[in-house]
Amino acid sequence: MRDITVFSGSAHPELAAEICAHLGTPLHPVQIKRFANDCLEVQLQANCRERDVFLIQPLVPPVQEHLVELLLMLDAARGASAARTTVVMPHFAYARSDKKDAPRISIGARLVADLLVVAGASRVLTMTLHSPQVHGFFSVPVDHLHALRELAAHFRQYDLSNTVIVSPDLGNAKEAAAFARLLGVEVAMGAKQRLSDDRVTISSVIGDVTGRDVIVLDDEIAKGTTMIELLDRLRERKVGSIRVACTHGLFAGGAVDRLGSQSDVAEIVCTNTEPVPAAAPGSKLRVLSIAPALAEAMRRIHDGESVSALFDAP
Amino acid sequence: MRDITVFSGSAHPELAAEICAHLGTPLHPVQIKRFANDCLEVQLQANCRERDVFLIQPLVPPVQEHLVELLLMLDAARGASAARTTVVMPHFAYARSDKKDAPRISIGARLVADLLVVAGASRVLTMTLHSPQVHGFFSVPVDHLHALRELAAHFRQYDLSNTVIVSPDLGNAKEAAAFARLLGVEVAMGAKQRLSDDRVTISSVIGDVTGRDVIVLDDEIAKGTTMIELLDRLRERKVGSIRVACTHGLFAGGAVDRLGSQSDVAEIVCTNTEPVPAAAPGSKLRVLSIAPALAEAMRRIHDGESVSALFDAP
Amino acid sequence: MRDITVFSGSAHPELAAEICAHLGTPLHPVQIKRFANDCLEVQLQANCRERDVFLIQPLVPPVQEHLVELLLMLDAARGASAARTTVVMPHFAYARSDKKDAPRISIGARLVADLLVVAGASRVLTMTLHSPQVHGFFSVPVDHLHALRELAAHFRQYDLSNTVIVSPDLGNAKEAAAFARLLGVEVAMGAKQRLSDDRVTISSVIGDVTGRDVIVLDDEIAKGTTMIELLDRLRERKVGSIRVACTHGLFAGGAVDRLGSQSDVAEIVCTNTEPVPAAAPGSKLRVLSIAPALAEAMRRIHDGESVSALFDAP
Amino acid sequence: MRDITVFSGSAHPELAAEICAHLGTPLHPVQIKRFANDCLEVQLQANCRERDVFLIQPLVPPVQEHLVELLLMLDAARGASAARTTVVMPHFAYARSDKKDAPRISIGARLVADLLVVAGASRVLTMTLHSPQVHGFFSVPVDHLHALRELAAHFRQYDLSNTVIVSPDLGNAKEAAAFARLLGVEVAMGAKQRLSDDRVTISSVIGDVTGRDVIVLDDEIAKGTTMIELLDRLRERKVGSIRVACTHGLFAGGAVDRLGSQSDVAEIVCTNTEPVPAAAPGSKLRVLSIAPALAEAMRRIHDGESVSALFDAP
Amino acid sequence: MRDITVFSGSAHPELAAEICAHLGTPLHPVQIKRFANDCLEVQLQANCRERDVFLIQPLVPPVQEHLVELLLMLDAARGASAARTTVVMPHFAYARSDKKDAPRISIGARLVADLLVVAGASRVLTMTLHSPQVHGFFSVPVDHLHALRELAAHFRQYDLSNTVIVSPDLGNAKEAAAFARLLGVEVAMGAKQRLSDDRVTISSVIGDVTGRDVIVLDDEIAKGTTMIELLDRLRERKVGSIRVACTHGLFAGGAVDRLGSQSDVAEIVCTNTEPVPAAAPGSKLRVLSIAPALAEAMRRIHDGESVSALFDAP
Amino acid sequence: MRDITVFSGSAHPELAAEICAHLGTPLHPVQIKRFANDCLEVQLQANCRERDVFLIQPLVPPVQEHLVELLLMLDAARGASAARTTVVMPHFAYARSDKKDAPRISIGARLVADLLVVAGASRVLTMTLHSPQVHGFFSVPVDHLHALRELAAHFRQYDLSNTVIVSPDLGNAKEAAAFARLLGVEVAMGAKQRLSDDRVTISSVIGDVTGRDVIVLDDEIAKGTTMIELLDRLRERKVGSIRVACTHGLFAGGAVDRLGSQSDVAEIVCTNTEPVPAAAPGSKLRVLSIAPALAEAMRRIHDGESVSALFDAP
Repeated sequence: MRDITVFSGSAHPELAAEICAHLGTPLHPVQIKRFANDCLEVQLQANCRERDVFLIQPLVPPVQEHLVELLLMLDAARGASAARTTVVMPHFAYARSDKKDAPRISIGARLVADLLVVAGASRVLTMTLHSPQVHGFFSVPVDHLHALRELAAHFRQYDLSNTVIVSPDLGNAKEAAAFARLLGVEVAMGAKQRLSDDRVTISSVIGDVTGRDVIVLDDEIAKGTTMIELLDRLRERKVGSIRVACTHGLFAGGAVDRLGSQSDVAEIVCTNTEPVPAAAPGSKLRVLSIAPALAEAMRRIHDGESVSALFDAP
Repeated sequence: MRDITVFSGSAHPELAAEICAHLGTPLHPVQIKRFANDCLEVQLQANCRERDVFLIQPLVPPVQEHLVELLLMLDAARGASAARTTVVMPHFAYARSDKKDAPRISIGARLVADLLVVAGASRVLTMTLHSPQVHGFFSVPVDHLHALRELAAHFRQYDLSNTVIVSPDLGNAKEAAAFARLLGVEVAMGAKQRLSDDRVTISSVIGDVTGRDVIVLDDEIAKGTTMIELLDRLRERKVGSIRVACTHGLFAGGAVDRLGSQSDVAEIVCTNTEPVPAAAPGSKLRVLSIAPALAEAMRRIHDGESVSALFDAP
Repeated sequence: MRDITVFSGSAHPELAAEICAHLGTPLHPVQIKRFANDCLEVQLQANCRERDVFLIQPLVPPVQEHLVELLLMLDAARGASAARTTVVMPHFAYARSDKKDAPRISIGARLVADLLVVAGASRVLTMTLHSPQVHGFFSVPVDHLHALRELAAHFRQYDLSNTVIVSPDLGNAKEAAAFARLLGVEVAMGAKQRLSDDRVTISSVIGDVTGRDVIVLDDEIAKGTTMIELLDRLRERKVGSIRVACTHGLFAGGAVDRLGSQSDVAEIVCTNTEPVPAAAPGSKLRVLSIAPALAEAMRRIHDGESVSALFDAP
Repeated sequence: MRDITVFSGSAHPELAAEICAHLGTPLHPVQIKRFANDCLEVQLQANCRERDVFLIQPLVPPVQEHLVELLLMLDAARGASAARTTVVMPHFAYARSDKKDAPRISIGARLVADLLVVAGASRVLTMTLHSPQVHGFFSVPVDHLHALRELAAHFRQYDLSNTVIVSPDLGNAKEAAAFARLLGVEVAMGAKQRLSDDRVTISSVIGDVTGRDVIVLDDEIAKGTTMIELLDRLRERKVGSIRVACTHGLFAGGAVDRLGSQSDVAEIVCTNTEPVPAAAPGSKLRVLSIAPALAEAMRRIHDGESVSALFDAP
Repeated sequence: MRDITVFSGSAHPELAAEICAHLGTPLHPVQIKRFANDCLEVQLQANCRERDVFLIQPLVPPVQEHLVELLLMLDAARGASAARTTVVMPHFAYARSDKKDAPRISIGARLVADLLVVAGASRVLTMTLHSPQVHGFFSVPVDHLHALRELAAHFRQYDLSNTVIVSPDLGNAKEAAAFARLLGVEVAMGAKQRLSDDRVTISSVIGDVTGRDVIVLDDEIAKGTTMIELLDRLRERKVGSIRVACTHGLFAGGAVDRLGSQSDVAEIVCTNTEPVPAAAPGSKLRVLSIAPALAEAMRRIHDGESVSALFDAP
Repeated sequence: MRDITVFSGSAHPELAAEICAHLGTPLHPVQIKRFANDCLEVQLQANCRERDVFLIQPLVPPVQEHLVELLLMLDAARGASAARTTVVMPHFAYARSDKKDAPRISIGARLVADLLVVAGASRVLTMTLHSPQVHGFFSVPVDHLHALRELAAHFRQYDLSNTVIVSPDLGNAKEAAAFARLLGVEVAMGAKQRLSDDRVTISSVIGDVTGRDVIVLDDEIAKGTTMIELLDRLRERKVGSIRVACTHGLFAGGAVDRLGSQSDVAEIVCTNTEPVPAAAPGSKLRVLSIAPALAEAMRRIHDGESVSALFDAP
């Protein structure tokens, strides 16, 4: 297999450029044409023959546009005789649709996994899936990274002697515990109860948080409703400082502003798996780059080195 | 196999309702949920077990939204144990991406055909594909209808003794000739030349058109640029009355108004494979319904009767 | 599709017989031959042509024997021209291997799902999967039942006015909450912490349990180690009476006796998804039958009626 | 992937030998055995393990024999552990069966594409497909060459100042226009009308041909019936000299003689995608070799260089 | 599934007609067109929608023509929405290519089995495969009949009190023994030794044949070379009368005459799995019809009745 | 493709170690965990990325355990991004289930071949399949070795001037003849008749054995019942010395002792395709190693050299 050849869809070109800078390899252009009938056509603008092709495209809004664009890129790479095509999808939004909890619904995560493979994906590199079982939806190898090292490196700048990590719910508890171990601190968690399809309440907080500096860690923040309710519970428990962290900063519907306007929230930290607006002066938002981690994983995939050796949970 | 069960996506519910009225069967609702992260989830709201399910969804703008929605509906029908699932896709927009005329481009029509099958399509019912070869892109049976009967019935109200059918280019010539045979009139055609990716010119008109009443027939009208240029050539040949007809009335970018503002265009005729705005009073647009034809084809598919017997080109 | 035709592997013939009695259909014999070289051969002893075949086989120890036997039965049914073959697998033991939480391990649940399909499974009927995502590992339709109705019917014989349902860990919390709603009581849960691969500790109990009658509900009980530790935590909280319930009563390594010897455990309740020894006189074990539920689901699958209508979580 | 290893079926060994001479690689023998019951068996007579295998076989008469032979060669190469097997099929005769223009007919081109893949084809190298959509019938990468450079080089020996390229019908018009651009001359075309299954008539010639030297270009010449009718139309228009050219010289039923006996036909030019008899002394037939082009494409495929860079239409 | 619908390829229309007469169902015509480029196109001339389609085509010379024709018929039936398509292939000539006994050869039987399935075969009905393992080459259900009942019925007209069945080699010994059991007589066999690819010698005859009336039974007779050598061995053992029988009467290269000219051969018996010339007056050839057996099997396949119940080896 | 990487399941670690010693490559450990519910989990303990992975596992008792373990290892290797995974299965026990000789039975050999491929096998290396047709059950390349060279080398230590090779039945006759040719001696064979499912009788011995030194050769010895009966027939024919040899020494139910207790049996020879107990002092059992042959085949597979060149039957 010959050289590594990287393309980016239109979802997050800044991340792709940053990854390529770390890899020391050019980011090849992709021409995406939209016809009068709203159909897309993709042209990869560099030779793919026998190349080790990587297509960088997180599934961020508009998700359906970016998904179809990615499928067309995969088709183009296969037709252009790529030796192997790896989808680099730092955020797999459809991973949340991972079970059939009502009759006659789609299981979107499994469907999209199958679509990617039929379109030509040889393998997938992704980050912080909503549930670890989604890994098993793919019939091709998956490298599943997390961003805990990057988040930990950021928070080590602070005095952590009185800190506790809080998971907003039980589903994220394992990751929160791993993060706490990385930082050498304790863990607590909220007990979330789903009242209805669109109403969730945090009924209690498990673990010792009173008087402690809190870092709330979640996999993703969308509208931030759960987070704000958790903050209420934490205040009732009279916590010290509050920081909020997540891997996927979706921040839909002005969530950054809603969270930032809470005066006791000192900082909102996320990574750039999605295109987050650059932090304005005075903003509480801090965006950490996972480009070095993705670049290193891509290098190891290309060179046949162990990826787990580098990124396993501590 | 048990009863016919029809669902519609959000692309063209009016057509679906009209088809179901002809079939005398209810149109079952589909709940389409959009999450905060822009992902879709589909729930079919009626029992599908061992049913003969039909999903009605033309690929009209926003095409990517409607395509992914259709794929999710297929997944839901399969998971809900449908005995057979037929995609009723009166307009298959991606059919235009049917060849690789530049290096490293996607062949969207073949890709989408494969996506539909992997998502669970047992068969496809479609109308007036851009090229007949696209039929062969599907690995499942396809019923490929046309709308010539409906268009012919409309034009028979006029005196056709001095009429000629004109195809704007050579690709549509075979269909224009069939239409002319149906009406018992002659055929002529424009010779289109592609100057560049976005510039096409009609260099000449083949056949006898001077002094004749003209019906220009195309498979689809998008922006109408080609059509307007053809009209110029026809005027140079001093034709009589002009009518414009097509199966798929996309009418992107105000095409209806552009065409209608040509004073010598007496009428613009299309079918409702796509949701065309109802003709305003005084509008030159006439929309013919292909719902009866689709309903009859669906009934024959369900009952195992010959579809070709009904719809073959004359 | 013609008549329903039911066969049972050697894993749990008593359950199969009971299901067939409910269906009013004969249980057809299967001849399983073991050759001198330890290979198995399966012969289905009734005509399968165009029949709606059901193969009943939970994956209980010896799991590998029962799995291969099931695969051979599937192959035989396909070769014998069954119209459709449904695997009735009330306990899918491999469902616990649902994620890749260490490098270079197998994801057994996805693998076995694929093996069943390649051997000829048209669909699967199962009960209380370890995680709901495992549903998405199958590329064929799955009907996923639970046993909460049967368990609730049993416990309604008692005065439940002071009762609380306790889930031993967070993973089972959703099912425990659904069970509590069914019984109109409250829910609490243990917070389990995995210290190492074979050491788990229950660090705390969330919710109000002191002085309450407790029903501990888990999806399955294997060795019972977690359960015994939870009982210690509950005693520290000075609960009232204690009952233990689960769907899958594996009871490995004398777990029934270990649990039963705890003097404050009033009752151990499970279902017969696995062959549990008949309760000896004086035993605290009560085995509820899910045969009626499986029989009804099978009837509905055969007749094309909605299964979700009957078994959806309350 | 190791060395290039080339085999030829029995369809066109001379072309294979010429290609191998250009590549500087041996043409390995294939033993084709015909049993008493008329079945074929193929043995590849050189080690294929991890080799980059190329099988040269145009689908020329007897087509069915050559097709099955090719499928058996593919099966043998796969069983012999070839790393990759490329079908070099300069003439894909079944490409004409590309649409379903009558009920209940086969679509031979899609079927044969699927047969090649199931038998083991990793990719296909072909030339001048009857319609470009046939490319999309293959689920493996296709390199689709044309012979316009070779044909142009031949005709540049003549004074082309008064020359026009004529396409016999509209289907081939795009290729004719490209050829005209290559030679810097103008283009015209015949308007073919299919009267019945075996009767075609050229009703008119579009474009300025009177007094011009004509080169008629088609993709293939089989019986030559259309060509002869076109010549009649051209004579009516009083053209100057006439030359006839095509890529695939099938020349069925004495077509070379029929065409050659037309006294005003100065030359018949084709390529050796098929085994054309060597031009007899005095014959008007000139056969150009596409072996150098195929050899160069094979070299680029093997070396992972861009093929489109070389062969794109001008 | 609706009515049975039978078509025949061009391999053996007489057998197809006879089968349909037994079934009391019409034999629908198939139009097979051969284009100027030697490609075939197939059109099934009756509605196939939701029908239970049977395609009758033994693989007899010209084998490759008949195979491709069959594949095209399968493709047409699938495209025409057949509910199920059963290949009725009384003689599967490629079954002899069932192993890889030399490096880099094709395994034709497995390849053709895969081709039939990819072209659309739902199931296969065949007779007397060269080795029973070939059944396992198919991934779809196979009904594998034999002709022993028909052959036995014929020979029961004779006095069998002094008769012995002789198998020409060890491979056919099991079938010969079953045939002997059917007739209540003894069995003997030749020990064949393959000297080279095209030279076989019968080294000895095992069992008591001296003075006995001999019926030599083989699965097929091609050139008859082995048979003639066996006759020499039998004469050395001074047998009584000699009769020769087989299922598949290929009789290549004048084999009937060669065998018939042996004065001590009283009769040559075969079945009509292949089109054998009608016995001329005075000819020793007797052709038994297996049409009733195939018709009964087809009826049972259509009606979902057990086929094994009827045709199992005695 | 990078380095060769070898793992062994638990079926025959001694053989794996010996193979690796010959290859000069480490045998990497595999951790096989058995959960309380009897499910297995496999972890490959060395980096597999882009490696040429070999998994050594003969299917020996307990066969089902070893089969599922192998399938899990394949799944783990695929998930760990192995470039290619070769199953080294010196004994494929399920190969005996190669035909459907009764209605509604499984064809285990084809099923297991399909399971191995769906679990991730890229190719298979095996030895002395029960019937050569089983090769064709695999859809991936198979290298099928035999042990005749090893057996011949052993017996050449004796005076073979008066020796004859005896095959116990007709099925193994071809291999016995090849063995005889290797040793330059003659061949004879027993005629086995199956009386019922578990009773077989050797009715006669074909060929000259009286007074000769006999080497009985079979592919495998399980219970040894057939062998002992053959010895009775040989004694009746007053043979000289007796030696017994086979490739696969299953020796179920004390077969070694039963055979060894026959005083005129001088030696029992087998290979180590299965874990045979080390010969006790005074034992008649001699175990030959096929590790060098397997190691050489693996080296050639890895290096892309011809395997047939080395191991073809003489």
